[in-house]
Amino acid sequence: MNRRYKLKCVTCGRVYEPEDVEYTCPQCGKRFGTLEVMYNYDEVRLKRSDLSKEGDIWQFLPLLPLPEDCYKVSLRVGGTPLYSFKDLGKKFGLGDLLIKYDGGNPTGSYKDRATIVAIAKAYEKGFDTIYCASTGNAASSLAGLSAPTDLKTYIFLPAKAPIAKISQLFVYGARAITIDGNYDTAFDISMKIGEEEGWYSRNSAINPYLLEGKKTGAMEIVIQNDWNVPDFVMVGVGDGTVISSIYKGFFDLYMIGLIDRIPRIIGVQAEGADAVKRTFEGGEPFKPQDVVAKTVADSISVGKPRDVIKACKYVKRSGGFFITVSDEEILMSVKELAEETGIFAEPAGAVPYAGMKKLVKRGFFEKEDTVCLVVTGNGLKDIKAVEKFVDLKPVEPDIERVREVIKEYEDKFQDQWKENEC
Amino acid sequence: MNRRYKLKCVTCGRVYEPEDVEYTCPQCGKRFGTLEVMYNYDEVRLKRSDLSKEGDIWQFLPLLPLPEDCYKVSLRVGGTPLYSFKDLGKKFGLGDLLIKYDGGNPTGSYKDRATIVAIAKAYEKGFDTIYCASTGNAASSLAGLSAPTDLKTYIFLPAKAPIAKISQLFVYGARAITIDGNYDTAFDISMKIGEEEGWYSRNSAINPYLLEGKKTGAMEIVIQNDWNVPDFVMVGVGDGTVISSIYKGFFDLYMIGLIDRIPRIIGVQAEGADAVKRTFEGGEPFKPQDVVAKTVADSISVGKPRDVIKACKYVKRSGGFFITVSDEEILMSVKELAEETGIFAEPAGAVPYAGMKKLVKRGFFEKEDTVCLVVTGNGLKDIKAVEKFVDLKPVEPDIERVREVIKEYEDKFQDQWKENEC
Repeated sequence: MNRRYKLKCVTCGRVYEPEDVEYTCPQCGKRFGTLEVMYNYDEVRLKRSDLSKEGDIWQFLPLLPLPEDCYKVSLRVGGTPLYSFKDLGKKFGLGDLLIKYDGGNPTGSYKDRATIVAIAKAYEKGFDTIYCASTGNAASSLAGLSAPTDLKTYIFLPAKAPIAKISQLFVYGARAITIDGNYDTAFDISMKIGEEEGWYSRNSAINPYLLEGKKTGAMEIVIQNDWNVPDFVMVGVGDGTVISSIYKGFFDLYMIGLIDRIPRIIGVQAEGADAVKRTFEGGEPFKPQDVVAKTVADSISVGKPRDVIKACKYVKRSGGFFITVSDEEILMSVKELAEETGIFAEPAGAVPYAGMKKLVKRGFFEKEDTVCLVVTGNGLKDIKAVEKFVDLKPVEPDIERVREVIKEYEDKFQDQWKENEC
Repeated sequence: MNRRYKLKCVTCGRVYEPEDVEYTCPQCGKRFGTLEVMYNYDEVRLKRSDLSKEGDIWQFLPLLPLPEDCYKVSLRVGGTPLYSFKDLGKKFGLGDLLIKYDGGNPTGSYKDRATIVAIAKAYEKGFDTIYCASTGNAASSLAGLSAPTDLKTYIFLPAKAPIAKISQLFVYGARAITIDGNYDTAFDISMKIGEEEGWYSRNSAINPYLLEGKKTGAMEIVIQNDWNVPDFVMVGVGDGTVISSIYKGFFDLYMIGLIDRIPRIIGVQAEGADAVKRTFEGGEPFKPQDVVAKTVADSISVGKPRDVIKACKYVKRSGGFFITVSDEEILMSVKELAEETGIFAEPAGAVPYAGMKKLVKRGFFEKEDTVCLVVTGNGLKDIKAVEKFVDLKPVEPDIERVREVIKEYEDKFQDQWKENEC
C-alpha cells in the first residue's frame, strides 16, 4: 500500500506505517515516543499559486495525513487573519510586528485546527466515538466541531474546571464526565477508558495527527505575509504541541521548496509553569523536568507537558529558545495588546506579547527584524481574568457630574501622555 | 460638489446633502426622522465579478458612503462564513437552511460592521472623539475597533450592565462612564454631552451611516450563496437597525442590477420586548408602541426602539412580517443550534432559529424554500445565560464508577433516540 506519509518516533527514529501504530512509539512509550508525520516531499504537488490568503484549512490537504475525500466538518477552520502593526513594531524598534490571530475560529481558539483533523481521522479509521481529557480549549473545540457530526463525544474534566468553560461543553451536547481529581487523574482515566471502549483519542501529543492540523497556522503566516518568512515567531507554550506545530508548518513548506528558510521560534512560558523551558535548558538528550503548574494563563498551565521532547528538539533546530513571563506581565499584556491593536486575547494568547516586550527591553532584536506573535485564543473565553481592570464608580444622572468625570478622564490621560513623553 | 449619495428622511421624504445634516431630519425629529442613504445607482460601478466570497467589508466600498481613501481600521471585519445545513433544513421540511454567522468578527458580533464605518466617518469629518450609549455589543465593538485608532472613545453605561460585558470595555481602554440609571437615561445623557462637546455619535439609528455598514452582511449572504437569493431571511430584532440593514443590502444590490428580487424578511422578537412587532401590526402610518422590555436576550432587550419606523417600512416592502418567541424557546434554541450545527450563539443570535422552528410548526414554509438565519453574536459573550444546562456530578476517580456514568449517558441518549423516532 503506497501511502503519502509515514510515522517516525521523535526519540528513537523508528519509522512506522500509519496502519501499524495508532498513537505513540511502542518502544519509547507515551512521553518519549511521540510520532512525527513524515511525507514523501518529492511527491507533494503544491505550488505557491495553489495557496490563497483567505483559504481555510482544506487548502493544505496535500500536506495533511488525510485522503482527498476525507470527512470535512462543515464549520470554517483556519484562514484567520494575519495583521501587520508596523507603527507599533517601530515603537519597539522592530522592522515589523505581525500578529496571527486565531480567536475567530469556530470555538475561538487555535485548537480547532487540530480537532478538525482528528475528526476526519476518526471517520477515516471507522471510529464512532471520540474523546479527550481537558478543561479548556481542546475540550470546547472537540465538543463544538463534533456537534454537527455523527460522532459521539466524551470529555473528561477535573472537578475544579471553571464553570464558564464547562458551560460550553454542555451547550454543544458533549457527554462530559467530571472526575473528582486533578487534570492528570482525568487524563489517565480517559486513556484507560478510551482504550477499553475502542474510542478515538484527541488527547494532545498522544495523537500525532493533531500537530498536522495545527501546523497550518504557520503556513498561513507565510502565505499572508506575501511569502516573506518572519525572522522570529513567538508563541505561548503549555504542553508543547502548538510550538512544535509552528516549526513543522515552516519545515514542510521548506521541504517542498516553497520557502528558503525557517524562522527562529521562541517559546514563551508562564513563570509558574515553565517545565518545557527547564527541560530545554537541561540540554540534550532532553529529559522532562516536570513542575507543579500555577499561572493565570490556564491554557498553558501545564506541569507535565506531553509534547516536551518534540518542542525542545524543534525549537533547538530552529535556532530558538524559551523565556518566561510573570502572571502580572501576562495580564498587563492582555490589556496593552487590546489597547494597542484591538485584539482581545485570553491570557495564554497574550503571553507572546509579554515575551516580545521582555526581549525588546533586553535589546535582543535587530532594527529590521520582523517578529510574528501567535495569539491562540479569544479573550471572551476568560472574562474573569480581566475583571481586575474594571473601575466602576456610578455617576448621578446629572450633566454637571458627568462633565466632572470627563474632566477627570482627560486629566488622567493627559498625565499618562506626559509620562510617556519623558 | 458631486457626491455619490444623499440622505432622505424615512418619514417626510425630504432629501438632504450629506454636509447639510449630521444625524436625523430636523423636521421630523430623532424618532421619526431617521435618514436613508440613497446612492445615484446608475453611477455605481460594481460587477458580480468584483465581489468575492471571502472578501471583507471593504470590497463593498463603491456602495458605502465613504471616500475611496477613507480611514480603514486595521482589523478584519466582515467576510464571515455563510453555512448551508441542507440535511437539517430537510428535517424541517425546507429546501435549504442557511446560516450567516457573524460571531467571528473582531469583537464577536454583527455590530463591528457598523462601527468600522462610523470610525471612518469620524475621521472623514475630522472628529477626535467618538461615543455611544450601550451595555452590550455596540459598546464593545466601538471600544475594540477604536482601540488601535487615534480617536478618544467614551461609552455611557447604565449602572446595572453585566460585569462580563463591562470588563471588555476597560480592557480596550475606552473611557467608560457608568450612569446611575437605566439605558434610556444613559442614552439621553450621552446625546446631550456628545452635542455639547462636539463628539461623533455611534448611537444606533441616530447615525444613518451605521446601517450602511451593517447592510454588507446581507450582501455577503447572496454572494456566498452563489448569487442565489434566499426566499426568507430571518433576524432577531431589538431597536430595528440590523433588520433594516438586511433589507437595504438586498435593495442596493437589486438597484444596481446584481440580483433580481429581494427576499421576504422576517423579524423575530422576544415576547418580552416586542415593540417593533406591535408597531408593525398597528399598521401604516406606523406609530411607535413602546414597551417595558424584559428578556434573556439582552442584545434585543429594547423597549423604545430607535429605528422602528425604518424597520416596519422595510419589512413591509419586502413582504415580510414579525413574530415573537419566548425566553424558554430562545434558550433551548441556543442549545439546539449548538448541538445541530456547532454554532454557539448568544441568546439574541439564536432568536431567528427559534422563530424558524415556530413557523415550521405552523406549516408556514413551502418544501423548496431556502431560509437564511442571521446569527449576530458569539455565545462566548453571554456564558451566564447557558449555565442552566450544566449538569455536574463529580465521579470518583475509579474506572468502575466511570463505566457506570458512561452507561447512564448511553441509556439516556438511547431513550432520546427512541422518542425522536416516534
